[in-house]
Amino acid sequence: MQHNVEDIEYAEYLFDCFYSIGAVEDGGVSRLGYTETEDEMHSTFARLGEEKGYKSYVDEVGNTYLYDGAFQKDDEYYLIGSHLDSVIDGGRYDGVSGIITGFLILEWLRRDGIKVPVRIGAMRCEESSNFGRSTIGSGLITNESYKHDIGDAVSRSGEELREIFAKKGYSLQPRRIQGIKEYIELHIEQGKVLEEYGDQVGIVSTIAGPRRFKIHIHGVAEHSGATPMRMRSDALCAASEIILEVEEIGESESFYQSVATVGVIENKPNAMNVVPGEVTLGVDIRGIDIGSLDRMEARLKAICKKVCEKRKLKYFREKISDIPPISMSVDMQQKLMSAAKRLKMQHRLMVSGAGHDAMSFANICDSALVFIPCAKGISHNKNEFATIESICDGAKVIYEYLKEEARE
Amino acid sequence: MQHNVEDIEYAEYLFDCFYSIGAVEDGGVSRLGYTETEDEMHSTFARLGEEKGYKSYVDEVGNTYLYDGAFQKDDEYYLIGSHLDSVIDGGRYDGVSGIITGFLILEWLRRDGIKVPVRIGAMRCEESSNFGRSTIGSGLITNESYKHDIGDAVSRSGEELREIFAKKGYSLQPRRIQGIKEYIELHIEQGKVLEEYGDQVGIVSTIAGPRRFKIHIHGVAEHSGATPMRMRSDALCAASEIILEVEEIGESESFYQSVATVGVIENKPNAMNVVPGEVTLGVDIRGIDIGSLDRMEARLKAICKKVCEKRKLKYFREKISDIPPISMSVDMQQKLMSAAKRLKMQHRLMVSGAGHDAMSFANICDSALVFIPCAKGISHNKNEFATIESICDGAKVIYEYLKEEARE
Repeated sequence: MQHNVEDIEYAEYLFDCFYSIGAVEDGGVSRLGYTETEDEMHSTFARLGEEKGYKSYVDEVGNTYLYDGAFQKDDEYYLIGSHLDSVIDGGRYDGVSGIITGFLILEWLRRDGIKVPVRIGAMRCEESSNFGRSTIGSGLITNESYKHDIGDAVSRSGEELREIFAKKGYSLQPRRIQGIKEYIELHIEQGKVLEEYGDQVGIVSTIAGPRRFKIHIHGVAEHSGATPMRMRSDALCAASEIILEVEEIGESESFYQSVATVGVIENKPNAMNVVPGEVTLGVDIRGIDIGSLDRMEARLKAICKKVCEKRKLKYFREKISDIPPISMSVDMQQKLMSAAKRLKMQHRLMVSGAGHDAMSFANICDSALVFIPCAKGISHNKNEFATIESICDGAKVIYEYLKEEARE
Repeated sequence: MQHNVEDIEYAEYLFDCFYSIGAVEDGGVSRLGYTETEDEMHSTFARLGEEKGYKSYVDEVGNTYLYDGAFQKDDEYYLIGSHLDSVIDGGRYDGVSGIITGFLILEWLRRDGIKVPVRIGAMRCEESSNFGRSTIGSGLITNESYKHDIGDAVSRSGEELREIFAKKGYSLQPRRIQGIKEYIELHIEQGKVLEEYGDQVGIVSTIAGPRRFKIHIHGVAEHSGATPMRMRSDALCAASEIILEVEEIGESESFYQSVATVGVIENKPNAMNVVPGEVTLGVDIRGIDIGSLDRMEARLKAICKKVCEKRKLKYFREKISDIPPISMSVDMQQKLMSAAKRLKMQHRLMVSGAGHDAMSFANICDSALVFIPCAKGISHNKNEFATIESICDGAKVIYEYLKEEARE
């Protein structure tokens, strides 16, 4: 849709204020969670709020919030949330788009004189790149059933989260966040479904939970010239059969919007003249339908057994994570779809394959997630790109929803 | 067969003299070619010759020779050759077994008063581990058609072969070795064919030449959660189809004693949550039958095209080496087989999948290669093992052959 020049300019200004923070040489940004670079993102966020006269505060784990001082601090509020950290050599739209959305909405509410209590929340450390754990900031304040060892998580520079929290005066057992009426997040899709269908916004029904496995296959490393084919125990050939079967499993379950991927392969000794002796695969299966996830897991188990028995190889299967799919509020989905319809915006109900802060909030309040397209679905690298117009599109849908809420 | 206690003891003594040179902590040895460690192996070799009163000399590229002073230096001779270098963290039998064989034969000839002019030749840098080039010492003195850039080859510690040669006074254009009647080499099999068939020695008919390829497959790296199966261009799935087809190609050509292996795989970005975007495979095909090698290469070419076209991926195939199979002397093979038969030793005519110094000498004189079993076919690591009895078995076959030569 057509947007006001002032809206585009304001969004561009906000984007530019974050632009150089954590910039790396080849064009991307590295803004790892709970580092000084993320701190700088948060202080810039607070400063941008001050420019508009908003009030800001920081919670017990370092998440930063902004709100219009026309409201009282203990009024129940809609939280427009996202994050300001990035992966290593990441892009500038993942997270930041959701924060810009918050600023646009606060601006429009004030401009139009609509009395809806809205806060923007910048969550800490959404990406798993620094500690191997994702959504730390939002997970802690929603009292997600974090493993007791979260304080033991070690950053890439070798510091424990516990030490960092102690230095900054943060708490690993914070009070649960209070006063939220609903949580709403805008995020770039990080896939290309919207782009391929020509849709402007996506309303997320469910966030798929990944089940992850490591498959260790043990063959025999032997001289590739001196070992006849029938005397081999080639771990890479076994791995290849499993990789193709995982693809087939994903395809056969795609009706349920499930996916299955072998993203990681480690081959030893990985030498031209040696038959591969040991291969480790990293398998990621995701979906929103528990039955489909269970079927995929059972088939993965069966195929590892079948392939390795046939080839007389040893193997070991390890489940390294199992996060259940998380539903967004059905009521909010429907109202956001209606809002998009009223705005004559091409939209679609869809699933999110990637995890987001909205997963944490869904545990404690009605939550919604709105996607906007990103070019070619590329994310987590310097080529990540979304248009400012798309951010305004998504923000408008959320604003339209909030206006309707105000009328109720 | 049963061996004299003195022979076993002498072979064990020789083995022990080399034992600690280049020993590494975890149990193996690192004796890289043209390093001080290899120099120490060669000076020990010369000293062991002096102990027996043999004469020693070093050629223009650092290969060391021993012979019985009863013969003149310009007499035509049988060269019993092998090497004293190893791979990194390699074993103690690869190369050294052939050198011990030489000492045993010189000893037996003298003991039995048989007048056959024999020399032992310890070739430099047979392994490719230091310079990425194999059989440098034997290749140079047989004037193998080395690429002009051999002097540019750089060691793991960053020194050019040219510099090392200049320091030591060696020549990159040495005179071709003179006076060889025949070349004979004993080597551990580095495969498990002899062990599986219960044979004591193998007589090599042909040394297979490797043809090597790199296959670069370009897909699209995308979020594994956010990209539906039918929108993917997964480079690892394409690679898996090629890996399994390479195995099939090897199996279908095994009648011709060919083998085909994917030993190397590099996957990018190799992350749990990313569909593989780029895969490189290292393919090694070997055989002794040119027709079979050509068929395998043509099928590899066809399958890359077929798989990548079907999956709409880009690929690039690069031939990185093409060494033709090299035949050993048919006359010598037959006589060595007869010798083994006379000694009532279980033997078999077989191919060598691995390269050896005998390949260099086959260019200039009749050459033979005799294999002895090594435990489980394991080589190039600390678990490499052959028995001293096996070395004596192989040496006896060669000695029996030489005695017959003396009678002719």
